Amino acid sequence: MSAPTVSLRRLQQRLEELGSIGRDPEGGITRPPFSPAHVDAVRQCATWMREAGLHTGVDEFGNLIGLRPGEPGPALLAGSHLDTVPQGGMFDGALGVVGAIECAQMLHESGRALRHPFVAIAFAEEEGYAFGSGTLSSRSLLGEMPRHRFPELVDGGGRTYEEHLRARAHGLPLSQVPAQVQAYIELHVEQGPHLERMTKQVAAVDQIVGSVRTVVTFEGRAAHAGTTPMPLRADALLGGAEFVLAVNEIATASDGHGVGTVGELHAYPGARNVIPGKTTLSVEFRSQDDSWLTSARDRAEEAARKIADGRKLRVRVMRWSGAPVQPLDSELRQTILDAMRSAGHDAVTLPSWAGHDAGILARYVPSGMIFVSSTAGISHAPQEHTPWPAVEAGTQVLLDTLLRLDATDRAARTLPLAYAIP
Amino acid sequence: MSAPTVSLRRLQQRLEELGSIGRDPEGGITRPPFSPAHVDAVRQCATWMREAGLHTGVDEFGNLIGLRPGEPGPALLAGSHLDTVPQGGMFDGALGVVGAIECAQMLHESGRALRHPFVAIAFAEEEGYAFGSGTLSSRSLLGEMPRHRFPELVDGGGRTYEEHLRARAHGLPLSQVPAQVQAYIELHVEQGPHLERMTKQVAAVDQIVGSVRTVVTFEGRAAHAGTTPMPLRADALLGGAEFVLAVNEIATASDGHGVGTVGELHAYPGARNVIPGKTTLSVEFRSQDDSWLTSARDRAEEAARKIADGRKLRVRVMRWSGAPVQPLDSELRQTILDAMRSAGHDAVTLPSWAGHDAGILARYVPSGMIFVSSTAGISHAPQEHTPWPAVEAGTQVLLDTLLRLDATDRAARTLPLAYAIP
Repeated sequence: MSAPTVSLRRLQQRLEELGSIGRDPEGGITRPPFSPAHVDAVRQCATWMREAGLHTGVDEFGNLIGLRPGEPGPALLAGSHLDTVPQGGMFDGALGVVGAIECAQMLHESGRALRHPFVAIAFAEEEGYAFGSGTLSSRSLLGEMPRHRFPELVDGGGRTYEEHLRARAHGLPLSQVPAQVQAYIELHVEQGPHLERMTKQVAAVDQIVGSVRTVVTFEGRAAHAGTTPMPLRADALLGGAEFVLAVNEIATASDGHGVGTVGELHAYPGARNVIPGKTTLSVEFRSQDDSWLTSARDRAEEAARKIADGRKLRVRVMRWSGAPVQPLDSELRQTILDAMRSAGHDAVTLPSWAGHDAGILARYVPSGMIFVSSTAGISHAPQEHTPWPAVEAGTQVLLDTLLRLDATDRAARTLPLAYAIP
Repeated sequence: MSAPTVSLRRLQQRLEELGSIGRDPEGGITRPPFSPAHVDAVRQCATWMREAGLHTGVDEFGNLIGLRPGEPGPALLAGSHLDTVPQGGMFDGALGVVGAIECAQMLHESGRALRHPFVAIAFAEEEGYAFGSGTLSSRSLLGEMPRHRFPELVDGGGRTYEEHLRARAHGLPLSQVPAQVQAYIELHVEQGPHLERMTKQVAAVDQIVGSVRTVVTFEGRAAHAGTTPMPLRADALLGGAEFVLAVNEIATASDGHGVGTVGELHAYPGARNVIPGKTTLSVEFRSQDDSWLTSARDRAEEAARKIADGRKLRVRVMRWSGAPVQPLDSELRQTILDAMRSAGHDAVTLPSWAGHDAGILARYVPSGMIFVSSTAGISHAPQEHTPWPAVEAGTQVLLDTLLRLDATDRAARTLPLAYAIP
């Protein structure tokens, strides 16, 4: 029995409506987690979830949950997140949430019963901007971000994660994710150029790339920019500038194996007539290959020390953090590829170069991702776009995958849920 | 008749007392113009001026003026400024003010009458941090900063220069600089390493170096630091980093002819996982040679355009500003050198690599500067220090120079004073 056909009209209407929440006059969407715009988005999706016949509530970590009950047994989970980066786009996160609701609604309207309970989930915090720590909601849910750290996580408005969770500003009933789960599946925009370059709409994701990141500080001597002769300077910005180029060189030389970025650079004291005495930089590398990450990290440290020596600067490299390459479930990927093939798509697999909640869930339950193409590879920007046929195709693959998963029995996995409220 | 001997004990006591005003626990002094600390410093110096027998008040530009009347005719002016950079030292500016007051006090106590009126002056704003425009007080006094711009100059606290001037927070009587002037002389710390390296205490300044400065912006494309492959990036920080090194290269290659500095660099949006789409940098060059400045400016522009081309970035170079080399009065310098020789000092002359009020006054009246050594060449920092014997020697040379000037008659020059209050 083939899957019901998802409604592109409704998908587009809902993505556009969601995209109007937190949108500024220049078109960028800014919905930090727990902000008024984010709360509005949660409420809007809750309304749609109820329309799709889901029992709807919010868990104690702020995640919106819509449950369609089934026979006793493990649940199928699908979703993504509702927060955005500052000046972000209308597809990142939103697509996976609206897509999961659409699947529920089509099943509801077509009277198709699933054997498994189905949960549509919208994580509250994924992007990592507000509290300086990404995939916060999925990591909190699974106990990877311990509760005692919640009061330390402070957003730009000075409120802690703890305070936001207590506030429960959306006014929705308390709910929980079921602990017994068969699979988690996330529909998401690629955010990169590969699908578009292949002129494909949909891909199954095989792994989420690993990353290493740290902060590097060069210290020299702040001094008067007029009276200090060139040979007597210890200009920390010169060290920083050389290091920016070194990081780029390491990544470029990898020939596609890895990427490397200095996204933040601060020069202190930061006055036009004072030689910078201190420069701090963020550095991160990402790769499909953990051994390349290790070597990039080592080469970056070596470059930093060599640059500091050459320029008579001191250098400090903070502890590196990050995550190893996270493979997604191969059986689930085959199911996604089967669904793609039966809809006439080529069996494309891609890695994800961005982190996702699926990368966290994958540590505990079989998890998969469906990517749809991003126009010009642009994401985290107002211009972020996915062609509407790809939106439709990806959501249809999601629905077909859910039906195929529902038809198979796999061992239930237990999520180590960190709920404290009974 | 030889000059009375200045009191090192009093100089040291007053510099230390002034240095305690606006000092933070780490030892840095922060006295932005018109701040409460600056107002306290003005009042303290006014008290000392009255003790030195000077008629004391503040002019409409916030400059503290102490007048010792003489015979009708042009006045001798001596002084410096009372504002500091953030986290500055206790000698920059303060020495020239306390030194001028000390000269007046020694004349007063020794009953030595000068023929010329004498004015000790403490300019309110010289450093350029508060309103983004240096030597503001001397330029306002001489009409170089037109009044209609006063409301545009806003400090970090959101108050305009205009508002500060109207407030007259020190509560001192209104005063004016006399228009007829024979000479302006400023005692100041070198802020560089040359005197210390020569093991000398005092120098006469021959010129104030010229400068050119601008702001350069590189624009690329902000994008996701994970999903954007290296070959598809337009990373504006890479352009900025290359340009920082290019500016340093241009100045270093001058072999002492010039200095060049990037003191400010901002990368936008400035998040660790976003490729910078825009980088702005300040750049300045200083030199004793105007033609070198022109060529450094041209080479920097060329480097910026070449870097942008090579990295597929856009570049904007704002209009260059700055000032040409400003020679100080040669006759006045000879008088300073005579005073130095008669006190047993070698006849050292140096250029000033920093800007000073004397560089503004020099456009209208014969102006001179006396430099004293800076320990390790450090200035604009809490560690700024001048050995006390050099403080004493410099102040003694100032007093002797004033007496020598008093004994000569030179044509009066008229300052184009921009006072509006009659």
